Amino acid sequence: MQKKDKKVPEVVIRRLPRYYRYLKELNKNGKMRISSGALSKEMGVTASQIRQDFSYFGGFGQQGYGYNIQYVTEEIENLFGVTKGHSAVIIGAGNLGRALANYQGIKNRGVTISAMFDISPEKIGKDVSGIPVMPMDKMEDFVRENKTDIAILTLPKDNVTSVAERLKNCGIKGFWNFTSVELEMPEPVMIENVHLTDSLMTLAYKISTDLD
Amino acid sequence: MQKKDKKVPEVVIRRLPRYYRYLKELNKNGKMRISSGALSKEMGVTASQIRQDFSYFGGFGQQGYGYNIQYVTEEIENLFGVTKGHSAVIIGAGNLGRALANYQGIKNRGVTISAMFDISPEKIGKDVSGIPVMPMDKMEDFVRENKTDIAILTLPKDNVTSVAERLKNCGIKGFWNFTSVELEMPEPVMIENVHLTDSLMTLAYKISTDLD
Repeated sequence: MQKKDKKVPEVVIRRLPRYYRYLKELNKNGKMRISSGALSKEMGVTASQIRQDFSYFGGFGQQGYGYNIQYVTEEIENLFGVTKGHSAVIIGAGNLGRALANYQGIKNRGVTISAMFDISPEKIGKDVSGIPVMPMDKMEDFVRENKTDIAILTLPKDNVTSVAERLKNCGIKGFWNFTSVELEMPEPVMIENVHLTDSLMTLAYKISTDLD
Repeated sequence: MQKKDKKVPEVVIRRLPRYYRYLKELNKNGKMRISSGALSKEMGVTASQIRQDFSYFGGFGQQGYGYNIQYVTEEIENLFGVTKGHSAVIIGAGNLGRALANYQGIKNRGVTISAMFDISPEKIGKDVSGIPVMPMDKMEDFVRENKTDIAILTLPKDNVTSVAERLKNCGIKGFWNFTSVELEMPEPVMIENVHLTDSLMTLAYKISTDLD
């Protein structure tokens, strides 16, 4: 694993998963090497940006021959914890929670969902694609015993803050938050707020403007 | 509606929905006015960025008294097509498609989902929260007749490109793409690719790094 010797800017961290998706796809199609120039054309970013972004992680190998695609994807998998893996729980077994429980993309990023929690008696005791739905009062014990580090929040917004606090207190390190609550917690707890509606509004703006 | 007299940068368009969420919440809590300074503290951005972002849309009113919260939210609703509304279809009635069909946030942004399309005989003819699931071969006629402008893509990735092409040809203006395919189409068609796994990888990176 490449040693990180400088703090990586947030924007760079956010771009790496996109490089990863492209490189995985190229790798799947049998491609072994790619130059920063070719990757730049493929992805619509400049070659110098690619080189600069990669430089935060040691550069990912010689540019003269192009990048070794498998090497770079494996390095990113190490850096992003895909190789080591993470254990997650989903709080809220509604439609979105169930959709995420079934989502192969999560597994492909090294995250294993080990349980879902809900308050509804009709849901508790059932399972979703093999993932058990358990009552909320078992949440703390489960998270502690299973050393769960990620909580995926898909519960109604009124309970988000208090549930997140309980999860933090039993060892959750990262929240993937799909609720409309803008969750904030001091480090070292990390939060990714996914605001789907912001993305939809952006799309609506663009098509409205275009139609004017 | 404030007339847009200069091209608004993409980053600014992406920040507006976040301002909107905060202002809506403040409005719901009975607040009438807020200064850029107070909003800046609330949101963790600088006051000058807020003023600069708003300046692309005419400034949203006098800063001396602070912003009139209801006025700004209404202006944003006009600019972002929330007021006028949009009609959408969901392609793919799997877990994610059904989750989105049930998602109140979509309605709150002025987008009405009028139908879902799928190839599965077990799903066709049923409905999800009152939204009918229809066969794929009815898609083009439905979109044309209902003047649908947004397609929400939650179908398996192998068919995404061809289905998107069919949708574009019958008048879809914007794609909200949840598939792993990085959809690209020439303007005026607009695309919002939602890569949930990128967000998850970012979170995993942050908690991995923190644990090192």
